[in-house]
Amino acid sequence: MAAHPIPEEMTAVVLQEYAGAQALQVVRRPVPTPGPQEVLIRVAASPVNPSDLAFLAGRYGLDKPAPVVPGIEGSGTVVASGGGVMGRYLLGKRVACVAPARGDGLWAEYMVAPAGNALPLHRSVELEQGAMSLANPLTALAFMEIARAGGHTAIVNTAAASALGQMVLRLAARAGIVVINVVRRQEQVELLTRQGAAVVLNSADEGFPGRLRDACQQHRARLAFDAVAGTMTAQLLEALPNNGRVTVYGGLSMEATEILATHFIFQGKSVDGFWLTPWMERKNLLQSMLFWRRAQRLMTSALQTHVRVRYPLAEARNAVLDYQRQMTGGKVLIIP
Amino acid sequence: MAAHPIPEEMTAVVLQEYAGAQALQVVRRPVPTPGPQEVLIRVAASPVNPSDLAFLAGRYGLDKPAPVVPGIEGSGTVVASGGGVMGRYLLGKRVACVAPARGDGLWAEYMVAPAGNALPLHRSVELEQGAMSLANPLTALAFMEIARAGGHTAIVNTAAASALGQMVLRLAARAGIVVINVVRRQEQVELLTRQGAAVVLNSADEGFPGRLRDACQQHRARLAFDAVAGTMTAQLLEALPNNGRVTVYGGLSMEATEILATHFIFQGKSVDGFWLTPWMERKNLLQSMLFWRRAQRLMTSALQTHVRVRYPLAEARNAVLDYQRQMTGGKVLIIP
Repeated sequence: MAAHPIPEEMTAVVLQEYAGAQALQVVRRPVPTPGPQEVLIRVAASPVNPSDLAFLAGRYGLDKPAPVVPGIEGSGTVVASGGGVMGRYLLGKRVACVAPARGDGLWAEYMVAPAGNALPLHRSVELEQGAMSLANPLTALAFMEIARAGGHTAIVNTAAASALGQMVLRLAARAGIVVINVVRRQEQVELLTRQGAAVVLNSADEGFPGRLRDACQQHRARLAFDAVAGTMTAQLLEALPNNGRVTVYGGLSMEATEILATHFIFQGKSVDGFWLTPWMERKNLLQSMLFWRRAQRLMTSALQTHVRVRYPLAEARNAVLDYQRQMTGGKVLIIP
Repeated sequence: MAAHPIPEEMTAVVLQEYAGAQALQVVRRPVPTPGPQEVLIRVAASPVNPSDLAFLAGRYGLDKPAPVVPGIEGSGTVVASGGGVMGRYLLGKRVACVAPARGDGLWAEYMVAPAGNALPLHRSVELEQGAMSLANPLTALAFMEIARAGGHTAIVNTAAASALGQMVLRLAARAGIVVINVVRRQEQVELLTRQGAAVVLNSADEGFPGRLRDACQQHRARLAFDAVAGTMTAQLLEALPNNGRVTVYGGLSMEATEILATHFIFQGKSVDGFWLTPWMERKNLLQSMLFWRRAQRLMTSALQTHVRVRYPLAEARNAVLDYQRQMTGGKVLIIP
């Protein structure tokens, strides 16, 4: 059942092997057909996120055989349904969506996904913002939920000048939670300070470990969200007071972390991780709906994302290279 | 108020600096006087535990200025009280006890400690067994409580041939919990197999990582208690299925652990620690009393400790060296 005329062929970006941007190729291939409980989405936009870089390098949690179409989140219009109540409901709707756990992603003109991977967008949310409404906004909201559940009045966040970091900062300000922002360049210190951040530390500064410890102590921060991993996780563990917890959600440093047992045994500290996919799966349907509604309402304010530059599909490789060169200061969007 | 004649001087073992067994000296010094809410204990026996080795090397969680009397747990008779309800109640009683957080420990003829550090022994428990009734038995019981609270039907334990490891094995058998025992020598495999252990893995065997993973999968073990740290913690994290947790309670390897962020982010794994002192402090008085009563009842069965050799105070250094050479096959006791 199709609501729009659908061509037979489409343009798609294919990752030939897990070897980063240089393994991306633009191809023509048949438009896929949705199976039962699946929908076909005409893709409107898809950002390049840190998780996409990890995916291209074979460092993301999904184990898909290459060649494969990358692109983890995006937006579009549901143009066909393979059957099922959800699919019929979504037909013709504008949606935010994530790539299926198995199969091709969003850097193509069309994508097939389970109907559950598509979430209808509120009319106030444009397709471009909608394309960036899952990974970062829901993660930022999740961090707030985790912080509140643990009774935290202060948290540490690393890579804090990222789109996600800025959302965390804005949400935390509304919730009255102090954020100790850790960045790695002076211009990022200035960026966050202009946005009203009270505590911004530059990890490249001499004396950073001591300042981090002082800030954690002063604000009684016992929880750190860490996108960097490697040495940063160890520095956070060291800086947090006893019973502090580091929740790793990214591995930007691509380093392993060296940790002393004494942090765990005598200081009651711990390290765990955060991944949005299983975190969302632990919510029931109603919880998920309320959570999504909340995210949509904030999408034009605290959860808004600035777009730095747009690339057509055919230039996906340049889009990735551009984002790798400059990961802050606005998103890179791929527009089929 | 004294129940027994107390001499003015005593023999004590003193650690001159945090440099291991060779920094131990035997001295004569005044018998200390208990202050308010404190008791004076005539020490009967004190074991050499892994935690004592860590203490002697300056790697334990207590920060006491040297010179200091070591000896973390032991037993004795309360011979004087500095006042307070608890102290008066304990006067004349046989007790198990732990060294105060600040001040001298048990490798002396007498020790002063807060009254709360002394627990009356049931008449069925001899002073020698009583000397070993805290660190290992309560830790083994705590592990069972943690495993049951998390709904675990299988756990991994490392350094599993230790006195503690054998207690865990016996308690788990009663509770119907499978233990995947990890040891590092073939004779330890045989020791535990003779005691009825169904799964014993030798970490020195080639193919150990694969076998550990297989065993975790087969028995659905999602929780590992780790006394070794270093590489072992990393191997455990690797072997456990998604959402597995490693709880570090000792650092026998004296190595740091190298961990990849991907375990935390995409596999939902975590590392935390266990230390008996704060764990017990989270219990209220009634919970602590019931816990202690349970431990006492099991002290002549599942929680019994075999004594390999006894040393007088004057030979404390030899006792430590002996224990360092052979940490399994029975405890080394120091008898003032």
